[in-house]
Amino acid sequence: MPATSATHVKALIFDVFGTVVDWRTSLIDDFTAYTARRDLQGDWTGLVDAWRQAYVPSMDEVRKNPQLPFVMLDDLHRRSLERLVREFGIEGLTDDDLDYMVTGWHRLKPWPDVVSGLTRLKTKYILSPLSNGNVGLLTRMAKNAGLPWDLVMGGDLFGHYKPDPETYLGAARLLNLSPGEVMMVAAHNNDLAAAQALGLKTAFVARPTEYGPLQKLDFEATGDWTVVASDFGGIADQMGC
Amino acid sequence: MPATSATHVKALIFDVFGTVVDWRTSLIDDFTAYTARRDLQGDWTGLVDAWRQAYVPSMDEVRKNPQLPFVMLDDLHRRSLERLVREFGIEGLTDDDLDYMVTGWHRLKPWPDVVSGLTRLKTKYILSPLSNGNVGLLTRMAKNAGLPWDLVMGGDLFGHYKPDPETYLGAARLLNLSPGEVMMVAAHNNDLAAAQALGLKTAFVARPTEYGPLQKLDFEATGDWTVVASDFGGIADQMGC
Repeated sequence: MPATSATHVKALIFDVFGTVVDWRTSLIDDFTAYTARRDLQGDWTGLVDAWRQAYVPSMDEVRKNPQLPFVMLDDLHRRSLERLVREFGIEGLTDDDLDYMVTGWHRLKPWPDVVSGLTRLKTKYILSPLSNGNVGLLTRMAKNAGLPWDLVMGGDLFGHYKPDPETYLGAARLLNLSPGEVMMVAAHNNDLAAAQALGLKTAFVARPTEYGPLQKLDFEATGDWTVVASDFGGIADQMGC
Repeated sequence: MPATSATHVKALIFDVFGTVVDWRTSLIDDFTAYTARRDLQGDWTGLVDAWRQAYVPSMDEVRKNPQLPFVMLDDLHRRSLERLVREFGIEGLTDDDLDYMVTGWHRLKPWPDVVSGLTRLKTKYILSPLSNGNVGLLTRMAKNAGLPWDLVMGGDLFGHYKPDPETYLGAARLLNLSPGEVMMVAAHNNDLAAAQALGLKTAFVARPTEYGPLQKLDFEATGDWTVVASDFGGIADQMGC
């Protein structure tokens, strides 16, 4: 049986970058191996960290200009990358190389507990990402990584990025559920705070190495979340799976 | 290897009612068993056939009034059912009974070749429904029936019903694919004609018992479709899976 406060939950929706997949190690390893084959040099660790730091500001620009057409994350990633490649002085990258790097986000590897935890949770609950990634990105990631989602929800479905309310409430609406029947799962306290304020249930899982030596936040739960666990197996335990 | 004309296909999107699931037998069997337990009487075959006949007109009302808010299929089903229950003179149904019957569309059974065919196709292609059903309906159907979709696309994602172009083109856009990289699979020639006119590839599979004795159309392919097969296994064969 799930914890009493989670009794009415019918669906779990997941933050993806950092919560489900280890973007930092995945991208650094991917680019290091790829560019070794291409005989290119670059500070891939520095570039990946800077790329991720460009993530929130790039989405904020979309969020603060709702009169402009929505720009999906693949395209924001491409814009940031083109700037960073110049800033890092990386020479010799072709257009195909840049495409390969942008689709690195489609090839991210899950944390070791993820596939087994999701597989257990799927027996009782509807499972979907609710990510700022676009549906095409998330679908390819799921196929590459074997993530057993029931459906795929990304920011482009709603024309909004988290933490805009349209994303959390749009997810509940698409599932024909009330917000209290949906649990947001994230390694980021601010994502859960936004979901909780709209009536969703919440589950926190710590990913203390997400940002490597740059990690400053989210070593532990800082809110009154419905479930707090050390990994996805722990969420499955507490949700009665 | 797939047929030459299907070489560039990356995703297959499926009509659902009739193509993937046998709505008629599923609903008649479901309601017969359910109402026997409730000691209720009704012409369930007649009601199910009439319910399906109300399907296209009910969507056409939405399609022809784009200034009004989109109404998802679960709600159209409920409206039609309430009218038909009166017309068929069925007495004693509670609100819970009507809910049960509307969610009968969430419990439809697949044709026998479907799960094995999709499982083969999933190894090489992105698979999604592109149905006039809403995402919540399609997600629950997939969990009940074990349909291994990669993602779930329903009319409510686009605020349109097929054959509106927004559905076919919206599916390609969400997948970051060009129309020619997407193949529409259906047992209905008119669905394929609408998809083909927009540049999608097409696959026809005959479901000659879909409408039981009322079947008048779609005994065979009537257009120049990319693939014509007798079941989903045949599509997998021709698509190189």
